[in-house]
Amino acid sequence: MTERIRISLDAMGGDHGPSVVVPAALRALQAHEDIELILVGREEALKQELARTGVEAGERLHIRNATEIVAMDEPPALALKKKKDSSMRVAINLVREGEAGACVSAGNTGALMATARFVLKMLPGIDRPAITTTLPSLKGHVHMLDLGANIDSSFEQLYQFAVMGSVLATTVDGNPAPKVGLLNVGQEAIKGNDQVKAAGRLLEDSNLNYIGFVEGDDIYTGDVDVVVCDGFVGNVALKTSEGLAHMISEYLREEFMRNPVTKLLGLLALPVLRSLRRRLDTRQYNGASLLGLQGIVIKSHGGADEVAFANAIRIARLEILKNLPAQIDRQIESMLSTRQAS
Amino acid sequence: MTERIRISLDAMGGDHGPSVVVPAALRALQAHEDIELILVGREEALKQELARTGVEAGERLHIRNATEIVAMDEPPALALKKKKDSSMRVAINLVREGEAGACVSAGNTGALMATARFVLKMLPGIDRPAITTTLPSLKGHVHMLDLGANIDSSFEQLYQFAVMGSVLATTVDGNPAPKVGLLNVGQEAIKGNDQVKAAGRLLEDSNLNYIGFVEGDDIYTGDVDVVVCDGFVGNVALKTSEGLAHMISEYLREEFMRNPVTKLLGLLALPVLRSLRRRLDTRQYNGASLLGLQGIVIKSHGGADEVAFANAIRIARLEILKNLPAQIDRQIESMLSTRQAS
Repeated sequence: MTERIRISLDAMGGDHGPSVVVPAALRALQAHEDIELILVGREEALKQELARTGVEAGERLHIRNATEIVAMDEPPALALKKKKDSSMRVAINLVREGEAGACVSAGNTGALMATARFVLKMLPGIDRPAITTTLPSLKGHVHMLDLGANIDSSFEQLYQFAVMGSVLATTVDGNPAPKVGLLNVGQEAIKGNDQVKAAGRLLEDSNLNYIGFVEGDDIYTGDVDVVVCDGFVGNVALKTSEGLAHMISEYLREEFMRNPVTKLLGLLALPVLRSLRRRLDTRQYNGASLLGLQGIVIKSHGGADEVAFANAIRIARLEILKNLPAQIDRQIESMLSTRQAS
Repeated sequence: MTERIRISLDAMGGDHGPSVVVPAALRALQAHEDIELILVGREEALKQELARTGVEAGERLHIRNATEIVAMDEPPALALKKKKDSSMRVAINLVREGEAGACVSAGNTGALMATARFVLKMLPGIDRPAITTTLPSLKGHVHMLDLGANIDSSFEQLYQFAVMGSVLATTVDGNPAPKVGLLNVGQEAIKGNDQVKAAGRLLEDSNLNYIGFVEGDDIYTGDVDVVVCDGFVGNVALKTSEGLAHMISEYLREEFMRNPVTKLLGLLALPVLRSLRRRLDTRQYNGASLLGLQGIVIKSHGGADEVAFANAIRIARLEILKNLPAQIDRQIESMLSTRQAS
């Protein structure tokens, strides 16, 4: 029998804790026959939730007790220092100890970053983890990073994001030469801030398929595979997109609810509108990777439902199968030696 | 006879020059009986364009000759130094000389900023112009600034943007206490970069209706009237929104084009879809104000069509009627004296 892919889940994290994580785990176990999941959290709470769903722990679903919970608004440093038996910390410990190939958490982002960095350590040549996610585009999808882990990123960090994003696209999508763009306020080289300009010069000399500066409206065109930016900018772009998508879907609903005729049309067009909604459903993109660590950590949205959280588990499985950290390590090493040689 | 509101138009600016500006001018003259427009640019080209539309210059439409044109990619400093008879420069000169109450240009943003600042000067207490525009929201609209004029804004600049945006919302919308939010990556005060945190502290002590940090997804909710941010961040948020709106409308089109049944539904639903499109039509928001100058300058999108450019003229008229620069000046002065007194 081949060994199963093991993933630890911070079962107490996120806005909903076990009431979402447990059903998501069951959903993922059904979808992927080669995985095994470890629910980490208060044993009693987890057993109760399992009982509610009529399932017991077994060969592919384990419970690992952890007595503490990191609050969503807890300062990261405090969580790291004081909560050594939190579900988040224990779930990450399992990755370090090799009991799990990856960890998924919907908990406090700052605490997850700090804990993952402390427990798993960074890959050589990487300063701090970057958060990346996949977004839909007109021609498929696009990877964007950083999304909030690093505020005021230096040009070296932007360069590291570019390398990691490119490896991600190659490894996970099988894209041999992902097009990497640097997010800026104008395509002319004279524009932009100093960090972006300096990162652009580094990228021009790299062996990445760097296509130059891109602007906000290029994110969704499908003409770029990896969009690199400072965490502040990336976080704003991502959340602005969520807000706008919500507003447009509200507008659409309002237009179809305007009068009896438009309501009837809306009913008739329901399959079309559902199909549109599916394409824009953020749940299918839930699961942001913390890149640059010596291990795989996936951050789920705090408010994720079970479909969304199950998708984060799917991403964890994929990154284990592709051995993503080792791929990043190899590429970073070769690029650093190229830069030193040149 | 009451005096008409006079607006100068940089008729050679933008991607299309007179072929858009002249028809836009005629459209605006029809819409607003109290305005008078001055087309600034190469006299021959303008006369030719007018002849093509069958209209002649007259009491409400004037031509002012200017021999040079600022290219869209020309370095601002060069345009400022070398092109003293450009359509852009002469159009702004008319504002300084009191021949026009405002100027509208679709030309090179950097050159427009530099020239406006040089010719008109800043209001006392304001460092540099900020670019602002109106965006749709779930409950009406929202003003956002800065949108790219200031990269790496200091906390004092962010504070100035907040004051100017608040005055704009009060003056133009008649909102007595506009809700001002500071764009950040998290609502908790511990998050964000140093400039944003320091600006937040200043705003808490101000007499503005400051509601605290907002995130990207708050822009479109209608729960905030003025969103304040660094120009890099604002520009990315704006362009990301444009890109996403385009993608969603493409998705919608694709879904209705999928098969004969959905095509028929799309035809039937055409009035509904058109109504949605109207609400999302960026042309009705075209016309970004350069705030903080001793005069009114409106930047139209470079690729604006005549409907969009005419809207920028509408905004110029409104700001003249409300005497926006004087309102900003008064508010800045009173806030500076409050800060010095406290």
